[in-house]
Amino acid sequence: YTRAEVAQHRTPSDRVWVTHGTDVFDVTDFVELHPGGPDKILLAAGGALEPFWALYAVHSQPHVLELLRDYKVGELSPEDAAPPPADTEDPFAGDPPRHPALRVNSLKPFNGEPPPELLTQSFLTPNELFFTRNHLPVPAVEPGSYRLRVEGPGGRTLSLSLAELRQRFPKHEVTATLQCAGNRRSEMSRVRPVKGLAWDIGAISTARWGGARLRDVLLAAGLGDKSGEWHVCFEGLDTDASGTPYGASIPLERALSAEAEVLLAYEMNGQELPRDHGFPVRVVVPGVVGARSVKWLRSVAVSPSESPSHWQQNDYKGFCPSVDWDSVDFGSAPAIQELPVQSAITEPRPGAAVPAGELTVKGYAWSGGGREVVRVDVSLDGGRTWRVAELLPRPERGRGWAWALWELRAPVAAGTRLELVCKAVDRSYNVQPDSVGPIWNLRGVLSNAWHRVPVTVT
Amino acid sequence: YTRAEVAQHRTPSDRVWVTHGTDVFDVTDFVELHPGGPDKILLAAGGALEPFWALYAVHSQPHVLELLRDYKVGELSPEDAAPPPADTEDPFAGDPPRHPALRVNSLKPFNGEPPPELLTQSFLTPNELFFTRNHLPVPAVEPGSYRLRVEGPGGRTLSLSLAELRQRFPKHEVTATLQCAGNRRSEMSRVRPVKGLAWDIGAISTARWGGARLRDVLLAAGLGDKSGEWHVCFEGLDTDASGTPYGASIPLERALSAEAEVLLAYEMNGQELPRDHGFPVRVVVPGVVGARSVKWLRSVAVSPSESPSHWQQNDYKGFCPSVDWDSVDFGSAPAIQELPVQSAITEPRPGAAVPAGELTVKGYAWSGGGREVVRVDVSLDGGRTWRVAELLPRPERGRGWAWALWELRAPVAAGTRLELVCKAVDRSYNVQPDSVGPIWNLRGVLSNAWHRVPVTVT
Repeated sequence: YTRAEVAQHRTPSDRVWVTHGTDVFDVTDFVELHPGGPDKILLAAGGALEPFWALYAVHSQPHVLELLRDYKVGELSPEDAAPPPADTEDPFAGDPPRHPALRVNSLKPFNGEPPPELLTQSFLTPNELFFTRNHLPVPAVEPGSYRLRVEGPGGRTLSLSLAELRQRFPKHEVTATLQCAGNRRSEMSRVRPVKGLAWDIGAISTARWGGARLRDVLLAAGLGDKSGEWHVCFEGLDTDASGTPYGASIPLERALSAEAEVLLAYEMNGQELPRDHGFPVRVVVPGVVGARSVKWLRSVAVSPSESPSHWQQNDYKGFCPSVDWDSVDFGSAPAIQELPVQSAITEPRPGAAVPAGELTVKGYAWSGGGREVVRVDVSLDGGRTWRVAELLPRPERGRGWAWALWELRAPVAAGTRLELVCKAVDRSYNVQPDSVGPIWNLRGVLSNAWHRVPVTVT
Repeated sequence: YTRAEVAQHRTPSDRVWVTHGTDVFDVTDFVELHPGGPDKILLAAGGALEPFWALYAVHSQPHVLELLRDYKVGELSPEDAAPPPADTEDPFAGDPPRHPALRVNSLKPFNGEPPPELLTQSFLTPNELFFTRNHLPVPAVEPGSYRLRVEGPGGRTLSLSLAELRQRFPKHEVTATLQCAGNRRSEMSRVRPVKGLAWDIGAISTARWGGARLRDVLLAAGLGDKSGEWHVCFEGLDTDASGTPYGASIPLERALSAEAEVLLAYEMNGQELPRDHGFPVRVVVPGVVGARSVKWLRSVAVSPSESPSHWQQNDYKGFCPSVDWDSVDFGSAPAIQELPVQSAITEPRPGAAVPAGELTVKGYAWSGGGREVVRVDVSLDGGRTWRVAELLPRPERGRGWAWALWELRAPVAAGTRLELVCKAVDRSYNVQPDSVGPIWNLRGVLSNAWHRVPVTVT
């Protein structure tokens, strides 16, 4: 069989085919027997099993392969087993391979999010599934020759190799959730069109990051003595066709704060950074919009002004719903730093038919600035009445940089239509707005209204 | 005339009478000529002018008294000029006199708020108009014998006289807004009854506070070296019939943070603290619910636990709307510290008839945690369309502890009915919820839905 033939078998009605190595299997009859649930195995339908098995260690047992053998229907044709040749004219030709489960919102540059069912499978998001938000082609960095430049007023500069960054500064670890400003933009687009990638609810993920504290590096560079309004500007090694790099900044006060735990990270969930997530070094600013956590970091500069970058000055800002592209004044709004309180339902999915009996609703909740989520309310009737969801135990509390996963179990009767809704409360008792229209903005950022999921009970 | 007779003349239809010294005036014909507006002069109707004139220096010019002379209609009877004798059995008999403009929500203990029209007359609220939230009788403190006790684990204690507090520690000044957790509770009660004082929108005020930094005092007491979850517990000199004082606590991390600017304040807008606001010393915790800014401070204790006080443990917490007094578990919710983003319209008032032409809408906006307000949106049509209000210049920015006053001017046509609405956005882009029902809670705290004011245009 060719890979194209396998790819046509993605649903039980078309039969469900998967590959492992060069073998092809028809697992249609196993879908309902899958211990992880039929929705999870269907994510691999029409393609290779290996990327999914790699996520969940339970598959590495010998009896799993034995079980699979019974479903074999053929083999891949030899020419179809090798990857296609790279296009050397394409600036994105050097991008790394991605996990097939990521839902692609843009291929070049690559932007993809994990499917909701996998997002809340684990407190830490597997690196392969972590949402990927690239603005430009992924740079190819040779770690041996990598240098990070740290500079400030008065010409004080420091240049660090990767080895120096690892050895000169103590490794600090932080479990932090990163969220794109555009998470849940697709709900905002339904009110009125907006400019931006059509993220569903998956532009948010959580990892344990390891690296040097930015504070320690700035102090070593003699840049820790500023008072007043200073900023730390970051530039990436990713550049556009004109050579302009991605850039962003944060206030120096945050960068120097021991409590803010801003990292120059070289580890993600105990592994070196994947290429899509900034190899070899990225910034991680806990509690702050993902756009400031610059990847493939090439320079850190202390400056009296915010980053002059397009993404700091003329993007990633919030506006009144009445502001359009003719009237917008980007200078009138502050660059997004800390994000507002957020939550979403990951299971069931909108439009799902759920069985009568006990319904389990699952989701995530998070807030910026380290303001951990203290409560999630769930409604089954569109927001008329509310129940308190159970916040699942967090492996490590830390300072509130990470999300809370939550569940609600409730009895539901056959033949009813439910509108599931969730809303979170953070430690400052900030809440989510009821509806998306009044927070609509032309860039489709900061979409944090109640999340609504209609389902029918069968 | 008696004061009771004067008090019957409060509206133009009953004639508007006021007193100055022992003279009685009928100023009905001056109401529309009042340079500050008819609504402001009517606040003094039926009573003495002096407390209002004291607020606004413009009245201290000689021509004002001359102008008033033309309206004299008589004098107060001699026995009615003296204050009534005190009731020595009443624990509240020693409470100080209050400004007559304060709207009284509870007399014993005294709880009063400034009328909305006066609230946004000035960035700093005059001390006489600052909302007053007392839980118990106001203690009479002799400043010469006042001692503040500072204690912590291991028996380290410090005892400070008022003079020592002033002299041993540098005076630090902070402009900060304080808000009661119950501000706008009356809107929540309209959804379903709640337990608590029926505050309108005035349980919020702003002052410039002066005093010693709590941080400096804790360091002087040798209590600055704790790590982990410690708390600073405050007790007031105000006690109930059993001798139990008012108490509350904040996390030690906030108390020790130089950026958090927590004060042991002895000055309010450049004057010594008024008795109703904690004379001689109160705590001021910027960005945090007023309940933690303990007045008439008698002790500060570093402790591994939060204050055991009723007001910390079993009050001032938020719950899901489904929680009632039978099901509430106060241990399940965190004590309110930082407050969520808030705003309200102070002019015009609900139900007002406003003239066609240019309408000016005025209000305040504030958020907890130093997250200054970056935008206020105003709707004239109940929230369907929005305009951006003008944020008035702030005399001093500081760290975002103070409110923003705002105005919106818009043309309005005669014969229309408008539903004015405001909603604010803070620096973390948190917004207010659309409606009050889904944030309803049994104590009626954290009422920060959009503020709605219906008016008719004539």
